[in-house]
Amino acid sequence: MSSEIFLTKDVKSDLTNYLKGKQYSEICLLTDQNTGRYCFPLLSELFPKASIIQVEAGEEKKNLSTSEKIWQKMTDFQLDRKALMLNLGGGVIGDMGGFCAATYKRGIDFIQIPTTLLSQVDASVGGKLGIDFKNFKNHIGVFQVPKAVFIDATFLKTLPPAELRSGFAEIIKHCLIADKTQWEKISKKTLTEQNLQELVAHSVKIKEQIVQEDPKENGLRKILNFGHTIGHAIESYFLEIPDKKLLHGEAIAIGMIAEAYISIKKGFITLEEAEQIKEYILKIYGRVDIFEFDIEKIIPLTLQDKKNENNKIQCSLLEKVGKANYNNPISYADIKEGISYYNS
Amino acid sequence: MSSEIFLTKDVKSDLTNYLKGKQYSEICLLTDQNTGRYCFPLLSELFPKASIIQVEAGEEKKNLSTSEKIWQKMTDFQLDRKALMLNLGGGVIGDMGGFCAATYKRGIDFIQIPTTLLSQVDASVGGKLGIDFKNFKNHIGVFQVPKAVFIDATFLKTLPPAELRSGFAEIIKHCLIADKTQWEKISKKTLTEQNLQELVAHSVKIKEQIVQEDPKENGLRKILNFGHTIGHAIESYFLEIPDKKLLHGEAIAIGMIAEAYISIKKGFITLEEAEQIKEYILKIYGRVDIFEFDIEKIIPLTLQDKKNENNKIQCSLLEKVGKANYNNPISYADIKEGISYYNS
Repeated sequence: MSSEIFLTKDVKSDLTNYLKGKQYSEICLLTDQNTGRYCFPLLSELFPKASIIQVEAGEEKKNLSTSEKIWQKMTDFQLDRKALMLNLGGGVIGDMGGFCAATYKRGIDFIQIPTTLLSQVDASVGGKLGIDFKNFKNHIGVFQVPKAVFIDATFLKTLPPAELRSGFAEIIKHCLIADKTQWEKISKKTLTEQNLQELVAHSVKIKEQIVQEDPKENGLRKILNFGHTIGHAIESYFLEIPDKKLLHGEAIAIGMIAEAYISIKKGFITLEEAEQIKEYILKIYGRVDIFEFDIEKIIPLTLQDKKNENNKIQCSLLEKVGKANYNNPISYADIKEGISYYNS
Repeated sequence: MSSEIFLTKDVKSDLTNYLKGKQYSEICLLTDQNTGRYCFPLLSELFPKASIIQVEAGEEKKNLSTSEKIWQKMTDFQLDRKALMLNLGGGVIGDMGGFCAATYKRGIDFIQIPTTLLSQVDASVGGKLGIDFKNFKNHIGVFQVPKAVFIDATFLKTLPPAELRSGFAEIIKHCLIADKTQWEKISKKTLTEQNLQELVAHSVKIKEQIVQEDPKENGLRKILNFGHTIGHAIESYFLEIPDKKLLHGEAIAIGMIAEAYISIKKGFITLEEAEQIKEYILKIYGRVDIFEFDIEKIIPLTLQDKKNENNKIQCSLLEKVGKANYNNPISYADIKEGISYYNS
């Protein structure tokens, strides 16, 4: 089962066409205060009767307590199993709204309308849903693909630069793990020089192909986790430190540098290739201070990574530039050296 | 995808054989204080290293707060995605433990070991998982089949009579919706005269066949809900009244009488057939006082039934004795008359 993916410049009319003839008993729309303000106006005409659920924005709200509020609203609206949920927002809204839809009365249909670059190139495709649990990212969740995904570049205009930068990290990742030529192209340009619409389509295509081959992440799909073993741990760690909080992509960017270094250690890529990756990423993202005592706390957080087996940390690495592999056991020492390489 | 079902008289040795050669990274076992005391000793030898999670017993604990405790324990045990969860207990443990397993890190394998008659003939087969939410039964959940189900009659010996009676309601239901001959056989005997082991096998076979034809309850599977539209509402209502709390099967027994009456009204079965059903059920279960003011509060609770569509209450009814149909729209008046018939 896969989703219909619409790359559109006019989500309103495409969504209208899509819904024509569909027999949903009710449509419910989930937003946060940002997408409610900046994105919903594009669609509001379509849904005079829609039941709107608005939650607070932010990764720290992607938890059981917010899910409970969403389920409560769905219950208050008396949604039945033939209802449809539209998730209008970034990754938090898509992951959490999808999870709530997939578990409400054992599952109702849902559609993702990703509004951030990050969610357009990553979260909206592939059916990974979930919420964070006590600092562990996406710890509780299910696999369930949306009925459809509507990706509209118009939404990107509403994004602050930091959000664009965050999403761009996943574009870099898709090039590094699957398309060397594209990597060489993008790494010659700054972020503002990129053709984002084209890159979104490119990323979605790569992700779709991988996910179709291995929907439940038993093998190949793990390559999409390049940069994430260490990146997630860094993201979780800084989530607790208010003035150092990182966006997902900013943390993954660091993770990619650290894991590129581990890819050298395993004999996969050359130092020169890793240096190019590091240099480009630092140019886009700047450098975050990660001190020795931070590293000591970050390392154990990798133990909860979902790719691990038998308490061994399993990492997806670059076999070469443009190709990744997975299930590489790595040690605490590897992680420490990887982050030190980022710092150097 | 379906589960392997083992009807066994020696769960210990059959489970040992089953697990031989399986490569689980860890086995975690969920019990409540009752099954921990009466059932776990049968298996404890097998799992010297098992991570045990024990929760409080009772339908009122089948909620988000207990699930959170289970997820927390699973996290504390650092279970990875290759871990296995064994749910040793009745329907509450199976539904909730299955739900927690199916959502932990987006899903780990689980095995059901139902220890009550009710869960042996009903909950353990078919992959309906979930928890209650603000008084709505199984409101949050997923469909996910266990890897295997081990049904051992030995466990029934540990059950109090009320529990046996509760489970027997689902056996009656399976006969009424799918096997007239068997209904005629069982309705000539008291509960203690029944051959439960044979009836468990009979019920499991009926349920399996139905579930295989329609795993996600788009159609046929709804017939398994005979007695449940009204029964669930009654169960939910009395859940709030400590000294009137009913076991699931006790509530379903009332629901079957009420819905048998509605089956007459719809021209499906005769008054005589409904009378036979009522008489037999009352003989086994006695009569519960349901007053006018109770009925007024019970009726709206049927609105949250998961089979409803477009705010219409959809009921599964007896087309004839030994055959059920589904998606019959019924009114508040029908429900009221049905419960009054029970009272008469």
